[in-house]
Amino acid sequence: MKKLTDIIVDSDRIITKDHIPQSHLTDGLKSHYGQAEILVYPKTTDEVAQLVKYANQNNLKITTRGAGTNLVGSTIPNGGMIIDLSLMNTIIELDKSTFTVTVQSGILLQDLQQFVEKQNLFYPPDPGAKNATVGGNISTNAGGMRAVKYGVTRDYVQALEVVMADGTVLNIGSKNIKDNTGLSLKHLFIGSEGTLGIITQCTLKLIAKPSVFETLIIGFNTIEQAVANITTILQTLTPTALEFVERQVAQWGERYSGFQFPLPDSKAYLIIMLDGANKQHIVQQRQQLLANLGDCNYFIAETIEQANQIWTVRGSLVRAVEAVTEQDPIDIVVPINRIADFIHYTKQLQSQSGVRMLAFGHAGDGNIHLCILRDGRDDKQWSEALEQIHNALYQKCHELGGLPSAEHGIGTAKVKYFNNAIAQENRQLMQQIKQQFDPNNILNNQVYITQL
Amino acid sequence: MKKLTDIIVDSDRIITKDHIPQSHLTDGLKSHYGQAEILVYPKTTDEVAQLVKYANQNNLKITTRGAGTNLVGSTIPNGGMIIDLSLMNTIIELDKSTFTVTVQSGILLQDLQQFVEKQNLFYPPDPGAKNATVGGNISTNAGGMRAVKYGVTRDYVQALEVVMADGTVLNIGSKNIKDNTGLSLKHLFIGSEGTLGIITQCTLKLIAKPSVFETLIIGFNTIEQAVANITTILQTLTPTALEFVERQVAQWGERYSGFQFPLPDSKAYLIIMLDGANKQHIVQQRQQLLANLGDCNYFIAETIEQANQIWTVRGSLVRAVEAVTEQDPIDIVVPINRIADFIHYTKQLQSQSGVRMLAFGHAGDGNIHLCILRDGRDDKQWSEALEQIHNALYQKCHELGGLPSAEHGIGTAKVKYFNNAIAQENRQLMQQIKQQFDPNNILNNQVYITQL
Ligand SMILES: Cc1cc2nc3c(=O)[nH]c(=O)nc-3n(C[C@H](O)[C@H](O)[C@H](O)COP(=O)(O)OP(=O)(O)OC[C@H]3O[C@@H](n4cnc5c(N)ncnc54)[C@H](O)[C@@H]3O)c2cc1C
Ligand SMILES: Cc1cc2nc3c(=O)[nH]c(=O)nc-3n(C[C@H](O)[C@H](O)[C@H](O)COP(=O)(O)OP(=O)(O)OC[C@H]3O[C@@H](n4cnc5c(N)ncnc54)[C@H](O)[C@@H]3O)c2cc1C
Repeated sequence: MKKLTDIIVDSDRIITKDHIPQSHLTDGLKSHYGQAEILVYPKTTDEVAQLVKYANQNNLKITTRGAGTNLVGSTIPNGGMIIDLSLMNTIIELDKSTFTVTVQSGILLQDLQQFVEKQNLFYPPDPGAKNATVGGNISTNAGGMRAVKYGVTRDYVQALEVVMADGTVLNIGSKNIKDNTGLSLKHLFIGSEGTLGIITQCTLKLIAKPSVFETLIIGFNTIEQAVANITTILQTLTPTALEFVERQVAQWGERYSGFQFPLPDSKAYLIIMLDGANKQHIVQQRQQLLANLGDCNYFIAETIEQANQIWTVRGSLVRAVEAVTEQDPIDIVVPINRIADFIHYTKQLQSQSGVRMLAFGHAGDGNIHLCILRDGRDDKQWSEALEQIHNALYQKCHELGGLPSAEHGIGTAKVKYFNNAIAQENRQLMQQIKQQFDPNNILNNQVYITQL
Repeated sequence: MKKLTDIIVDSDRIITKDHIPQSHLTDGLKSHYGQAEILVYPKTTDEVAQLVKYANQNNLKITTRGAGTNLVGSTIPNGGMIIDLSLMNTIIELDKSTFTVTVQSGILLQDLQQFVEKQNLFYPPDPGAKNATVGGNISTNAGGMRAVKYGVTRDYVQALEVVMADGTVLNIGSKNIKDNTGLSLKHLFIGSEGTLGIITQCTLKLIAKPSVFETLIIGFNTIEQAVANITTILQTLTPTALEFVERQVAQWGERYSGFQFPLPDSKAYLIIMLDGANKQHIVQQRQQLLANLGDCNYFIAETIEQANQIWTVRGSLVRAVEAVTEQDPIDIVVPINRIADFIHYTKQLQSQSGVRMLAFGHAGDGNIHLCILRDGRDDKQWSEALEQIHNALYQKCHELGGLPSAEHGIGTAKVKYFNNAIAQENRQLMQQIKQQFDPNNILNNQVYITQL
């Protein structure tokens, strides 16, 4: 039997129990911690395959880790071995003639984005945490703000290399744009939260970089007006991004970031990004957009600085909240015609429960993010409050035809709401697939799929 | 045990052995015929579920049939029961506020397209056979010409209702745009060619109907020039459609349709469709496009009639060939930078083998269609010629990194090339999934997945 040091020869890439840093025993929220026997940093697919075989032989469960920015507990290990992919960050090939880039899966999103943009190409998915890995993005089918126009991570995965639970290496997909050859294994791995295999390499689709972007912000006198205009906008054109922010929430971001939103007298905003081949194209889209909107004020960012300031305020909302009090982040999705109902409900719930919550989100695709604020609550009060608020929110979401995860995944945190939302037959099929792919339940056995 | 007439009470919706029309024992090619015990026309999901249970009890295999336009033998039954879904063609709901339409799966593509376009909405997938069913389109992940800009059927499926092999009814997906709740069963059913379940209902995503379309045709002096410009065009903008046609092939279409292509002195054409919100937007795209092209002539369709004539010639190519001689249609895909190599190879193969073949296709996504012409060959010569040409073509396609099916599927016709193209481990996983979903192998047991 191979020893670990035969597989990974650099001793600094093997870290044992007591030396594993706390940061590796948790997720992006850092509110719960697990434990593990061993943490390894492979650099090659072959090392990953051998590690998986080693884990099998030694009866070790595996937790696969990208950057650990997930917000649903899925990288909190339950003993066993953590395989951290952050050293697998090589760019293997940029193929301009097929608009694809092939990378090891541990590369950070921000590094990928920078690299391709320098080549005048563009990787559209743009989830908030730029320090997440691409492998993590694929495993959670990460979304982000540009999803309205460009779709989610799923839409940009052309090929995957995956180490399976028994250590075999699978190659799935290709550089071909159309593909109708057999059942789509690729789409099974996307969004599977590390339960079916370890993604070691991927080929991603790129597009030509849009030449011009414009940001405008539209201020409304009521939240209802803002929300009502979301559908109007989507019926007129497809913006790059379409974000909803209440004035009250914006103020948190303003205080934290030091920048101001324009139109401070508004009650709610829609922030819109447009992109196009040239300025004329942008102006045209904007004119169309404004012509169809009801009563509102608007501000067009004239400079890149102005645009950046607006997006900085938007981007700082979560951290702004966290600077003041602990928060619990909610990621839900409702059909776009139910956004108003859902936001209205959060207001009601806030008054009833006395628990403050701030709503904002990717309005263009019905994806609402909420911060539930801890404020002065002690541990017991906080966990009771959360339990109650979660139950109410996910129930409402379900009633409105929504789902308990738009883009963060289920992990360990949402098992209960997943079980409520997804029918028994469907969950059973998922479990059967998991069983086929990983008969000994060695991969991420802490997350939802084994607990259905 | 229920009798068939308890399940389907209208006697004209049950047809027994000798009365089953020949047209129902074949596919869109009509070159091979199978046999079946019984043909039924359910009208409701409940009837389908009961029929499946009946089939189980009576040891009947099931062949699911939409409109039977597939070109890969997948609706050629191997005994048992044919479930024809063509009477399940109801439009259940148009939901303008979520941009979705819910239909029974047997509705024809052309009926769906007409219905939504009257409402100023648009269902982008546009495969050639408008008389195919939407359920068939989903089961084959049908592509078509607008895929360059808008993607394939997969990209527009929001939700499915599926009758499983044991008669249970599964509901998958929702009207939500983002969805990261568990393994994607939806994507498994899409493109599964009837092997995993019977799709009875679906919710499809719509977009706002583009206001203006323009067709232009670009003539080149050599095939190589035409093909070389495909990448240039895709780097400049995303056309609605981008089709490649050789002059020689165009002439067949001209003779058949009675319309002429412009620029008759060219050796090869790229036909381009643009769409946009208004005329100005179109002109802008066109100018950009032409500025980046090398030496070429072009013709802009000034009227809808002119545009229709061009697309009629393009659309008539297969039938034009079939009016002269039997043909065998090939649907392959290569990475877009290998299109030239593949087309060049077909020329070589034609000279070597003496078998005529005409290439055209969805150049924008590397999807090439070939007609292999039978000409004077007797049965033996024809099947030998086909065997030889197929082997050579699929081998070349494989060497170029291509796949044996872009959009038609595998069915029964491409099992051998599928097995060559897709690794053993991948095929085994597909088979395991099939086994989980349909343990008695009752659904479409004639097609590839049971023969790997
Ligand atoms: C400030 C902040 C903003 C965020 N904004 C967004 C947003 O806009 N949109 C969004 O979708 N998410 C967002 N997230 C959530 C998170 O960033 C994403 O889920 C991200 O995709 C996780 O990537 P990661 O590399 O950190 O993966 P990890 O957190 O390490 O892992 C996530 C899951 O994927 C698995 N996994 C990771 N890598 C692999 C691999 N190579 N093979 C197999 N399984 C693997 C893990 O086992 C785990 O189940 C945000 C998080 C934070 C902290
Ligand atoms: C002239 C012509 C042009 C064509 N052009 C294109 C093109 O541009 N792009 C393209 O992709 N294809 C094209 N095709 C192929 C064909 O039209 C497509 O494959 C189409 O999607 C088949 O739909 P159908 O309703 O005819 O399905 P069928 O041929 O009846 O069935 C196809 C497969 O799907 C299964 N199936 C059908 N309905 C269901 C259901 N409800 N549930 C489960 N399984 C089901 C069947 O069992 C079978 O395996 C063309 C065919 C012709 C004849």
